[in-house]
Formats: sequence, C-alpha cells, structure tokens
Amino acid sequence: MHFLLGVVMASAGKEPKSDWKEIQPGIWRAQIGSADKPTLTDAGRAVAKSERLAAMPQGKLPFSLDSVGLKKSKNFATVHIPLGKDEKIFGLGLQMKGADRRKGIYHLRVDHYDQGNDRLHVPTPLYVSSAGYAVFLNTSRPTNFYVGIGNRLDDQSRPPFRDRNTDRKWDDQPPSDWVEASVEAPGLEVIVLTGPTAMDAIRRYNLLCGGGAMPPMWALGFWHRTPSLATAQNVLDEANEFEKRGFPLDVIGLEPGWQTRSYPGSMEWSKERFPDPSGFLTKLSDKGIKVNLWENPYVAPETDLFQKLGNKFGSHTVWLGGAPDVLDKKARKTVQDFHKAKHPGVSGYKIDEVDGFDVWLWPDHAEFKSGPDGLQMRQIYGVLWQELLLDMYKKKNERTFGLVRASNGGASHLPFAIYSDTYDHRQYVTALTSSSLAGTLWCAEIRSASSPEEWVRRMQSACLSPIAQLNAWADGTKPWSFPTVNETVKEAMLLRESLVPYLYTAFAQYAMDGTPPIRPMSLVDGGTETDQYMIGDSLLAAPMFTGETSRTVRLPKGQWCEYTTGKLIGENQKITIKPDLNQIPLYVKAGSAIPTFKNPTSVAKGISSKAILVRAYGRLACSGLLYEDDGRSFNHEKGDFGMFQLQTSDREVEATHLAGSRTTPSIQFEVIRLD
Amino acid sequence: MHFLLGVVMASAGKEPKSDWKEIQPGIWRAQIGSADKPTLTDAGRAVAKSERLAAMPQGKLPFSLDSVGLKKSKNFATVHIPLGKDEKIFGLGLQMKGADRRKGIYHLRVDHYDQGNDRLHVPTPLYVSSAGYAVFLNTSRPTNFYVGIGNRLDDQSRPPFRDRNTDRKWDDQPPSDWVEASVEAPGLEVIVLTGPTAMDAIRRYNLLCGGGAMPPMWALGFWHRTPSLATAQNVLDEANEFEKRGFPLDVIGLEPGWQTRSYPGSMEWSKERFPDPSGFLTKLSDKGIKVNLWENPYVAPETDLFQKLGNKFGSHTVWLGGAPDVLDKKARKTVQDFHKAKHPGVSGYKIDEVDGFDVWLWPDHAEFKSGPDGLQMRQIYGVLWQELLLDMYKKKNERTFGLVRASNGGASHLPFAIYSDTYDHRQYVTALTSSSLAGTLWCAEIRSASSPEEWVRRMQSACLSPIAQLNAWADGTKPWSFPTVNETVKEAMLLRESLVPYLYTAFAQYAMDGTPPIRPMSLVDGGTETDQYMIGDSLLAAPMFTGETSRTVRLPKGQWCEYTTGKLIGENQKITIKPDLNQIPLYVKAGSAIPTFKNPTSVAKGISSKAILVRAYGRLACSGLLYEDDGRSFNHEKGDFGMFQLQTSDREVEATHLAGSRTTPSIQFEVIRLD
Repeated sequence: MHFLLGVVMASAGKEPKSDWKEIQPGIWRAQIGSADKPTLTDAGRAVAKSERLAAMPQGKLPFSLDSVGLKKSKNFATVHIPLGKDEKIFGLGLQMKGADRRKGIYHLRVDHYDQGNDRLHVPTPLYVSSAGYAVFLNTSRPTNFYVGIGNRLDDQSRPPFRDRNTDRKWDDQPPSDWVEASVEAPGLEVIVLTGPTAMDAIRRYNLLCGGGAMPPMWALGFWHRTPSLATAQNVLDEANEFEKRGFPLDVIGLEPGWQTRSYPGSMEWSKERFPDPSGFLTKLSDKGIKVNLWENPYVAPETDLFQKLGNKFGSHTVWLGGAPDVLDKKARKTVQDFHKAKHPGVSGYKIDEVDGFDVWLWPDHAEFKSGPDGLQMRQIYGVLWQELLLDMYKKKNERTFGLVRASNGGASHLPFAIYSDTYDHRQYVTALTSSSLAGTLWCAEIRSASSPEEWVRRMQSACLSPIAQLNAWADGTKPWSFPTVNETVKEAMLLRESLVPYLYTAFAQYAMDGTPPIRPMSLVDGGTETDQYMIGDSLLAAPMFTGETSRTVRLPKGQWCEYTTGKLIGENQKITIKPDLNQIPLYVKAGSAIPTFKNPTSVAKGISSKAILVRAYGRLACSGLLYEDDGRSFNHEKGDFGMFQLQTSDREVEATHLAGSRTTPSIQFEVIRLD
Repeated sequence: MHFLLGVVMASAGKEPKSDWKEIQPGIWRAQIGSADKPTLTDAGRAVAKSERLAAMPQGKLPFSLDSVGLKKSKNFATVHIPLGKDEKIFGLGLQMKGADRRKGIYHLRVDHYDQGNDRLHVPTPLYVSSAGYAVFLNTSRPTNFYVGIGNRLDDQSRPPFRDRNTDRKWDDQPPSDWVEASVEAPGLEVIVLTGPTAMDAIRRYNLLCGGGAMPPMWALGFWHRTPSLATAQNVLDEANEFEKRGFPLDVIGLEPGWQTRSYPGSMEWSKERFPDPSGFLTKLSDKGIKVNLWENPYVAPETDLFQKLGNKFGSHTVWLGGAPDVLDKKARKTVQDFHKAKHPGVSGYKIDEVDGFDVWLWPDHAEFKSGPDGLQMRQIYGVLWQELLLDMYKKKNERTFGLVRASNGGASHLPFAIYSDTYDHRQYVTALTSSSLAGTLWCAEIRSASSPEEWVRRMQSACLSPIAQLNAWADGTKPWSFPTVNETVKEAMLLRESLVPYLYTAFAQYAMDGTPPIRPMSLVDGGTETDQYMIGDSLLAAPMFTGETSRTVRLPKGQWCEYTTGKLIGENQKITIKPDLNQIPLYVKAGSAIPTFKNPTSVAKGISSKAILVRAYGRLACSGLLYEDDGRSFNHEKGDFGMFQLQTSDREVEATHLAGSRTTPSIQFEVIRLD
C-alpha cells in the first residue's frame, strides 16, 4: 500500500555531471541536442504530481548517470546505458507478445497491431529494469531500442570472439552489456526514473505524467456497443432487453451510423437514425446509462466542422477527409467547441483510426503547419485527441472515460482505454499485463466467439480488465447470444459490477500514487508471466483460455485464497488448477479486505444503495483501502474525497481516515468472512 | 535489336522550367534541396554512356515536367508526379511478389528478403511506366513510394467522396492520380528517363549507370560451391568427380572455411585447409576452372586486415567484427590492396551479409566517419564493396564476376548477381523478372530439393538465369545427388553451356545498349506475368514448378517455335503446355538465328573449339547477333570486340560486321535449320 508507506526523503545524494538534472524527486533528465517539439509530455499536457513524487521512498541506480553515453550525430540522437548482467528488462510499449525484452531490437511506432514487437497501438518509449529503475525517452518521434544487443567497437566490455568455422558456441547475435536507444531527430530528452523497485519506477513515470487517469465510477461498469447502423429506437430496445433479462448495463456506445456520414465523418447526429438526440439521451440517462460516441478524427469536406476548421488540416487526406491539425491551438478549440455544442449530454468518445501507419493515415512526409511532419504526428495524434476531449470535459467539471486506438508516453492521466482490431484472447491478456508498462489502460473487449466456452472465457477476461466491454459493432452479438451459458456470462458481469468499489479504489491509487490498477507480474515481483496479473493490491487473476481445462498459476509470496470461497490454496508456489467453465480463477491475498457492492446490478444502483460488502479473507483482522468521492466531477482534485483504511474484526469494519476532506465514509458496511 | 535502330536525335523540344535539366540525352534531373551524399550513382561510381544514350530514339513524356511537384519540408524531400488513369507501373526494386505496382505503398530498404514489398536485397528507387518513361530517385537514403494512393488535400483531381455508412462502393484506400515519393533527407535528386518505350526507359537507366555489367565469358558457365569446411583436396576431388561423370564445371566457389576464421573473418587462406593456395588454384586453372571466394566484409579484430585499417571502421560491430568504412578512399584502397596481395589468381568474390537490417548489421544511428549514418550506409554497403572489387580487377585489366547479397540503384555496371537465403522457386523466378527493373542480375541458385522432380525443375530454372549455380555450402549436394534424374540434370547443364555464345551476346547488348539480358514481360510488351520471361532478343522461357504437369504460356506478338525441335507452336496467344520432366519450356521467335557452342562441355572448351552452331528457327532466312571479344579483359571497352549480324540461308551463315575493331568473326559456323 504505497499510499501509506510514502516517506518524504531528500533526493539522491550524488550529483552527476551537468548533463543530468533532477527535474522531479527521483527523476533525472538529460537533454541531447534540441528536442523535436512537442515532446510526449508536451503533447499530453502532462503536469507532474511533484508532491506525490516527493512522498516516495528514495531509489538508487545500479549505474552512475555519468556512465550514460549521450550523443548527437548528424541525423540521430543516441543514448547508451549500462545494463547489468542479471537485469531483466520489461516494457517498451503495449506489447502483445511476451514480457522479457532483455535481448532484442524494438522500433517503436504507432500502428494497428499486426505482429512482432515494433508497430504498436501504444509505443511508449519506456522500459523498466528489475534492478529498480526505468528509462523514458520523452520524444514524439519514433524510437529505436537495442536492448542487450549491438556492440559498439569502442564498448569497454564485449563478449569473447568466436570463430564460426569451428566454434559451436558462436552466437549469431552476440549479447551486449548496454541498452542503446536512438531517434532520428535533432535532439532527445532522456529521463531516468529511480525506484527503489521496478513498480516504484513505474509509479514515478505515471506521476511525472500527471498521475493515472481517474475514471468516473460509471465507467467501471459494463459497456455495450450497438451495431453501426442502429437507430435510436433500436438502441433503446436493446437497453430494455438488458434490463428485462437482468444483465447489467452502464454505458452504451454508438458506432459510425450515429453520424450523418462516416469515414470521413461529419461528427453530427444523423437526423434519420437519431431524430431527437436529446430525448434519446434523457431516456437512457433515466435508466442510469451513459452514452459514448464513436468517431474518427477525419472530417468530410462538405460538413460544418470542415468549414469551421478553415485551412487547419494536414497536407494529406484520410479517406479523402481532412485531418485536423489539433496541435494548433485554434484547431484544438474549434474541435472542442464543436463537440461541446453538438453533443451535450454525451459521456465520452471512442476515438477510432488514430493508429494506422501510412497505409491508412498520412505519409511520413505529410505536413502539419503546427510543426510536426506526418511521421511525428502519427505518433501523437491519439494523444492529442484524448487530451483535447479531456480538457473539454474538465472545463465542464465532468469526468469522462473513453476508448482510443492509439496512445503514447505522457498520457497516463488521460482517461481512455486502448482497444484493437486484433482478437487473439491470449494476446489480449498479454496486452492487459503490458499496458501498465506503457502508462496506458487496455480494454480486452469481446466481440464474437465460435463456441459458448469461448464466449464465457472471453467474457470473464473482459470483466477483469479496466473497461468491461461488449462491442457488437459488426454483428450485433448480445451477452445472451449463447443461451446455454447465459447464467455463467451474467455471473461474470455481476462479479464485475460487485468489484466496482475495489476497482475504483485501485484507480484512485493510480491517480494519486501512480500505481497501475492492472499490475503485471514483472512489477509485482519480477515475474515474466503474461497470462496472470494482479488487480489492485489484493486480487490475482489467471484467465482461462478456450480449449484449456487446466492451467498453472504462480502464487507470489504470501498466502492466497480463492475469491469466491475464501479457501486457502497455497503460498509462494506454482499450482495447477482445473476450473469449471463457470469458475473464474481469481485469488485474494490472505489478510485482505475487499470492498464490493452488496447488491450488484449496475453502478448507478450500486452508488445509490450506499451498501458495501467487505469481503475479508483468511484472517480475522483483514485490511484494505476504500476510496470515495462524488464519482463524477473533478472536485476530488481539490480534496473532495476520502481515502480510508478498512480494518475488519469478526463482523465489524473500522474505517480509518487517511486522506481527503471526507473524513468518514458515506456508506454502510457489512462484512463477510471467508477464512 | 536496339543496337541497330539507334538514331541520333535532338533531345525533347519543350524546355521545362529551370528546376529541370537534361543531364543526358532523354534524361532529366531536378534537385530538391541539397542531396545527402553520396547519391546512388556516386556510390556505384557510375559513368553514363552518353554516346549510346544519344543514339537512342527520342521519347516523349505523357506529362509536363512543370507539373511535377518538388518540395522540401522540414525533414523530407518529396516529389509528386502525375499518373495517367491507364498507366501500369512496374519496378521498385528486386521484388519477389507480383509485377503490378499501380496501387500501393513501398518503403524501399536494403534487407534480407522476408515478405512483402518493402525490405529487399536490391531496393532500387526506380519505377517504369507502361506509358514509356521511368523515374529514378538518385538517393542512398531509404525511399518511400505512394503509387496511385494517398490523396493530398490540395490535389486538383481526387476520387468522389463516399459515405461508409450507406455506400457499398466506399473504398478503404481511395485511388489517386499521382505517384508521391519521399525521402527523410535535406534533399533529393529526381531523375526522369524518357522512352519512347518502357524498355527504352530502362535502357536509359542502365546507360546512365554505366551500361550493364559485361561478364567474362567463363562466368556464363556452370558454378558450383563446395561445403563450408572443405579442404583443398576435397575441392579438387569434387572437381574431378564432375569431370569423371561428364558434368560441366566452370567456376568453383569456396565458402567460409577457406578463411582462417569467419563471422567476422580474416580474409586470409586457412593454412590448415588450404596449405598451398597457389598450387590449388593452378590445378583448377589447368582444368579451365575459376575460383570464387566467399567473404563478408566484417573484419575480426586480431587480424592483419584489421590492423591495416586502423580506425577506419563504423562505430558498431557486426558479429563483433569491424565494418570497414569503404566510402573512405584510404579504407577502400586498403581493402583492395589486401585482396590483391592475399588472393592472386582468384576470379572474383561472393560478398555475403551486406543485406541485413539492424538485426544483423549496425543500427540506423551508427556512424561512419566518411559521412553516412548507419541507415544510409546499409543502403549502399553492397554497392561500395562491388565497386571496390570491380575497380581492383579493372586495374589488372581482368574481368571479374561475382555474387552479392545486396545492391541498389547506380549499380547496373557492377558485375555481380544477387542471391538470397530464401528458397521459394516461384519467388526466384519472379525475382529473375524483377531484377531487370532494378538494374541488377539475379542468381536463381539451387541448393537442395525434396524430390528428383524438384531437383530437375530448379536446375532447369537455374540454367536459364544470369548465373547458373549450385550452392552446396550447407549440405554438399551434387548435381548427381538424385541418381534417377542424372541425365536430365546433365542435359539442362549442357543446354546452358551451349547457350553461352547467345548469352554472351545478350550481355554485350546489356553493356552497350543497356538492354537487360533477362527481359520481364512488363518491358517486352507490358505484360504482368512473373512466371515467364525473355532471354535476350529471341528466347522465351517458361519454367515449370514442382507438382505441376501443365501450365499456360503467353506468346507475345510474332510466331514462336520450340527451342529443341523448332516446331511452330503459336503466335500472339496463350497456350497450355504439358512438358515432360526432361523438357524445358523454352521458345524461340521465328526468324531468329541463335549462336550456340557446337560441343558444349565447358566454356573453356567451347572457346578453344572456336565452333559455333547457329540454330535457325522457322524460316529460311534467319538473323541474330553475335558478339565476340577476348572474353576476359577490358580491352573491349577500347574497341577490341566485334558485333556481327548473322544471316542464315539454307546451310550458310553470313556475318555482317556492325561495330568494333574485330571485323570478321574468329570462329567457324555451322547451321542447323529448325523449321
């Protein structure tokens, strides 16, 4: 519980040479040449949370900053960083394969994910070491990382020479004791984040980027996206069907057909399909359902928004539409004003198609008058749209949460989750685990399945990801589309709803401490598993995949209990489990108190019930955090929140105030002991 | 026969605005910004054949040069060229898939071929249009081409807008009427080559690059590479085995084990495996067999060459060896002197491993003191090594021919053929057809087969490619390794040997007229087939692939005969053929006279026999070219050659002198009529 353990300490004692400056507590920066503006933190308008950084424990680097090579050559800026023989390296973007990045080359570019480790939805140039530090390249140009590979002729230490003619140990890629990273640009801002642990280094990164995104509470419920050409009536019918069948529903997402035209779009309501947007939104709002609108940023020439933007577009079209130059302040405001005027009552957006390479978007050489070329703009376009939409909602003092298909560094504070056109379940879970190493959130949405088993297993994973979403854009699948597993699917969705108070608290830790809600094993204890992860401080999830009847789970240090039964299952060991289809492998650290909604149906109802069931695992005295605020405004940023430590004893719960102006919880507690 | 038809004409009449300059007859250049030196023609030290260019027919562009957009932006130089609705576009490097490049994006970079159209052994930034012109970007930086795709907001003509919500004709990649190409560099040299035909535009390109490579005659025979760790005695035994079994052999290639060490290497003879290199070479030379040495350019630190090169290496190692900075004049000379001193009597080299991306070679940001960064140096490293080796042989007035795994534009005159670690037979034939659009030569070598049928079909293709090579580096395969097809394989090899006079003449046309010896259908008549091609003026090859018992062949205009029988098989039509395993689908244009060796055994014996059998097809009066020179020196460049037109009538051959100081052929003719 980082929230409690934070201790104010002076920054690291030794002063490295003048190349390096401590820009925030425990965060060092060196500048090579002149940075190609905007940097990533510029693009995301990230404001570091200095006080929270100052409250962190002090870390120590395993190398001297003076030993880091910083070089500007004709076309490149390069950094050369020592790498200990036993260090494990993790991160380098929203990766969908593996966790170990120790020996490899990574060309980090925004793209829709296809294969490999290079073209990613979120290519955050950030890696973290098991030795308890992280390195972040604060540049919006594409980056190249050579991790433990690629020896320089002048490197002090190099592996032994071998003769391929005769030596069977000859290595076709000799290892190196360095990470080298480069950018084709006039300069580069290199940021080194100290620990003491790898998790602490990631926390520092997130706090540098403004702290993690704090969603409105409704965003943690269940999302459903209706088919592209659905009418208002179709959508209302569908919402009623959820209610009738007893499936929870918190957010409905509308797909391209809500607009008069799409690809490129108008960003205006189709009068044909949505004759009365305001009435439509009110009807859903009355049921406690929020509406999210799909859009891509490309504007059709004959539309109102196109006229308003004047000449503030990039040089190249996307599907023949203009790409607004939203780094330009006027264009940014025009887009904000248009959204504000045209979509009152909408809770947020799904920003599509900001992740194509030049196959879908503009070429590298495209020009944007605000400064960046096309290559650079592709790296940050998703970030710029997230930021401008967040800013619009901030001015309304209303929290938003949305989806986006590309992001980058500097964006931890932006309230959007990433989704993808890929659909490999195992890769989706890997993406969950790597998203936290990229300073982002992943939505392991479900869309379709080829069997009831797959439908259940995917739904269970979706319900244990930051955003739990069914995206029926293409084929109109419903939660009940596989009737034989209706109850099992509903159980997963209701489990999700019940966990909202716990998840909301985990997000508060993300916002205040930088600790990500989804925690990969690499940050928990240096593990390389990509098929299990922790949610918040106390839960361990180990999703099942279609066709599997058993799997292994590695339990970290401490005792672990089954979530549902409380049964103790092991400690610091690998176990093999054989869960039935209706069982979700979800475990709780013994001694944890997990706050849940007592009667989960939807978030709106959960909030209004003001009833929290605290699940206490394995011991008489359990503890856990509970965060509370108004669930929807930015008032928490001014102190209007309460963070409490819950302490259970038999059937009692004691809530100790830790922080915030709310000194007592507004809710009723009940305890269930599972020991 | 371009050789005859050349007419001196004035260059195109209209003077475009000052951006464009006619640098050679029918070749226009525009300079955007300042070119990032060296250009490709600089790297290859190409000297244009101005007189031959002046002798070409005049071409006309389908667009005005003034309508070409030339732009320098912050980081890129871009050219924007009109594209007619009906134009077919071919080229863009040594492609292994398809011929049609009309709608696509190409990022041309040197790499070992894996898949796609981007990373190529030879990424020559050159395309040719069916409208009879070509465009060449004379830059050694990686290039990006957007062909018929990617509309600018300010383009005058764009396709109609469509609404994806409702219009089924909505196009996810709307076509454009432009080719846009760019380079991330301070400038770009754009070269437009006129026709009149697409073939003429390619001829102009090759003549701009110094004319095609003229191999020594021995290089057109049969090559065999021995296993990596073979000793001198092993190699001699193998050569004897060829002789004993009656298989022709002209060149033996030695693989890494000839060196004291490899990967990185010493470039010195292993005393252990080759105790007496000079005696070894003499023994082979006495049999008329040349020796080719494998090497990669990377130098092991503890070696003599490493010492001699001093600090003239790139910043990064390759397999821990130094990468000589051979753009530096002193380094280039050091490498040349070392080769000259250490390997007297060797006929040429196989330059391996110059095609890796940063996975095998150095990173983009590597530094070479001669100027280029690693990104640029990877694009030209193969070219630089080819050129320095050619230059060394030129100074000895001895022709060489070798193999190389990467090349680029500006290299048509360099006597090397490309090979690859890939091994898809169909891709190999596609590469044959595309090599001529990249100004290079392809070696469709054989290495192994999983059946006698495959062995035969691959051998037949290999024997109809610029270099006919069996590369037994890895597993020691011999031509006779599949005993049931021994005679069929031998037939293919002897057919190859018999064709050497015809092939040699085709190469002379390449050197003097720029007309490539292997002619893709795209250049012959705009066809898009990649599984058939012409060899020289008169032969049409249509290789068979394993598992096929029949195929279609498209016969271009004119009548066509079977090569072996002379049987007329059709004209200007598609035919379906069902060749037996021992039949090579090879056709001859009726009216052609094909000069062949009468008693093919090996090139050395063919030369000494001075006996040419002229194969006359389809008509009483047939004609064809015959080129003659000393077969081994550069004296032909000073006029010591003879180009003759052969004219047959019944059993007589008349040879009319066309060019060169040799006015009568030195050989005996016989005619065989196949009509």
